[in-house]
Amino acid sequence: MAQTEVTLGVDIGGTNTVMGYVDRTGHIVGDVTMPTHAHQPADVYFKRLHECAETLMNRLQNNYKLVGIGIGAPNANYYKGTIESAANLSWEYVNVVDEIKKYYHIPTALTNDANAAALGEMLFGAAKGMRDFIVITLGTGLGSGIVANGQLVYGADGFAGEMGHTIVDPNGRECGCGNKGCLETYASATGIRRTVQELISVKMEANEFQKTSFEELTSQMIYDAALRGNKIALEAFEITGRILGIKLADSVAHTSPEAIIMFGGLAKAGDLIFKPTKRSMEEHLMRIFKNKVKLLPSGIQEGNAAILGASALIWNDLEKISR
Amino acid sequence: MAQTEVTLGVDIGGTNTVMGYVDRTGHIVGDVTMPTHAHQPADVYFKRLHECAETLMNRLQNNYKLVGIGIGAPNANYYKGTIESAANLSWEYVNVVDEIKKYYHIPTALTNDANAAALGEMLFGAAKGMRDFIVITLGTGLGSGIVANGQLVYGADGFAGEMGHTIVDPNGRECGCGNKGCLETYASATGIRRTVQELISVKMEANEFQKTSFEELTSQMIYDAALRGNKIALEAFEITGRILGIKLADSVAHTSPEAIIMFGGLAKAGDLIFKPTKRSMEEHLMRIFKNKVKLLPSGIQEGNAAILGASALIWNDLEKISR
Repeated sequence: MAQTEVTLGVDIGGTNTVMGYVDRTGHIVGDVTMPTHAHQPADVYFKRLHECAETLMNRLQNNYKLVGIGIGAPNANYYKGTIESAANLSWEYVNVVDEIKKYYHIPTALTNDANAAALGEMLFGAAKGMRDFIVITLGTGLGSGIVANGQLVYGADGFAGEMGHTIVDPNGRECGCGNKGCLETYASATGIRRTVQELISVKMEANEFQKTSFEELTSQMIYDAALRGNKIALEAFEITGRILGIKLADSVAHTSPEAIIMFGGLAKAGDLIFKPTKRSMEEHLMRIFKNKVKLLPSGIQEGNAAILGASALIWNDLEKISR
Repeated sequence: MAQTEVTLGVDIGGTNTVMGYVDRTGHIVGDVTMPTHAHQPADVYFKRLHECAETLMNRLQNNYKLVGIGIGAPNANYYKGTIESAANLSWEYVNVVDEIKKYYHIPTALTNDANAAALGEMLFGAAKGMRDFIVITLGTGLGSGIVANGQLVYGADGFAGEMGHTIVDPNGRECGCGNKGCLETYASATGIRRTVQELISVKMEANEFQKTSFEELTSQMIYDAALRGNKIALEAFEITGRILGIKLADSVAHTSPEAIIMFGGLAKAGDLIFKPTKRSMEEHLMRIFKNKVKLLPSGIQEGNAAILGASALIWNDLEKISR
């Protein structure tokens, strides 16, 4: 029987690593999760990764032929195949592609999670057939992947797509990156928590959030409160959307995408975040761009995004090679 | 004798149209200027343009073979080959490529002046060999052309690269586009004039600019005064550079260019504008981008930029076709 070609999609997280074999249609034929144990040396990690992938392949009874490996990881550099000073991983500098080559002799590529998410949407999700679009991931921070002319924009150094660190207010909130007023200090799960804190400082009226510490406060709590009609929660979503919309209008002025796809924890708030973002984006767009740019949720089933994104990276590269 | 291949580069301005035949090395073998007479119908204009180009070619004694026509024009759409509602031209909507086809049966392409300038720098100027860079034109307004992965970014609708209308302050200066606080209301020849007006309103100390009306005030006067050490003029350049630098840092976070090339009237102020812009950009860049992005003046001889940019557009397209 002919073997179906699959790629291995791997997402390296600070806590867990998920991986799965994916065929060209975006079907995950098998997947598994292993703890990352990021405190162990990198070569130990990649040995475990290989064992885990082999065990999974054996379970699939050799019906599949592995043709490439795609990896999504924080602070990954596509050009160099490296992970550099990632906050959640103890490896200061690892050449991931070299580590993989110890075990496999097939095309391997690495990029950050937001870029992988963008390629996932292009091959398997909401951006199928689009040549110009942007994916925003609204998690703890704000990541982004930009596609122009049908190609992911890596930039001169492989680090393009850092929209989370465009500047909302040069005198604004302190950001983990060392600058002030970065977009992700407002528009992310952490950002909306900070906005609730700010609103507590501004408002007089009693509010349930006055009983919760900043540490205890989660974006899920803000979402739940907004659904119950809590004023501060609702205003926090409005403010988040307004700020995000202004900066998305800036992004549209750069690359004029057909769509912007919002993804990740905070995007799951649905209309609560999509409506004010869309309204603000439209308000701040130049006339020539108004009512043209779609603001879409991810088209990929929750839980599959990390594996499909990493797999899309290498499927996309394999197609470039074969052209 | 073998004929040298040339393209015709045409720049359509509100007052004058300049055109010239350009060989593949960027040498202008002959050029001419004609009044645009934008109040006349478009078909009359393109008949005159053809006559003018033919007269010039005859003067060149048939040593050249015309292989393509590239046109730079305000509000030009590359995909559709049209000019739409350009402020300085009375033609509400013209399909330029169709008009040209009445006279020539060779590849013809059209884009806006900033995009043409970017391609001019890539083929003949400061961006030779670069695959990721941005060109900013600092004239009456602020135009931009973005190149990523070696290709000009036109976006989904052909209008990408409107960095002049990214937003510095949503409650800021009124812009001709209908929005508020657009970058070009601060960083352009007009923007620096407005900044001088604002400084007059803020400062007490007597200053020569208090004797000049806003209408009379030119960016050249501000430049001359700055060279004489005029405090308001110097501060206006500082402010312009600071604001431009913040927004350029945002642009770097999008596409991570190898260089940003500044071009046009205000860029001729040299260090007066380059130094504060560079300082502010570096200050506001994410750490991973610091001290990597070059801020360069145009590499094209003044006066040739419009023709070379338009010519580069079609040379670039012809190379894509032949690949």
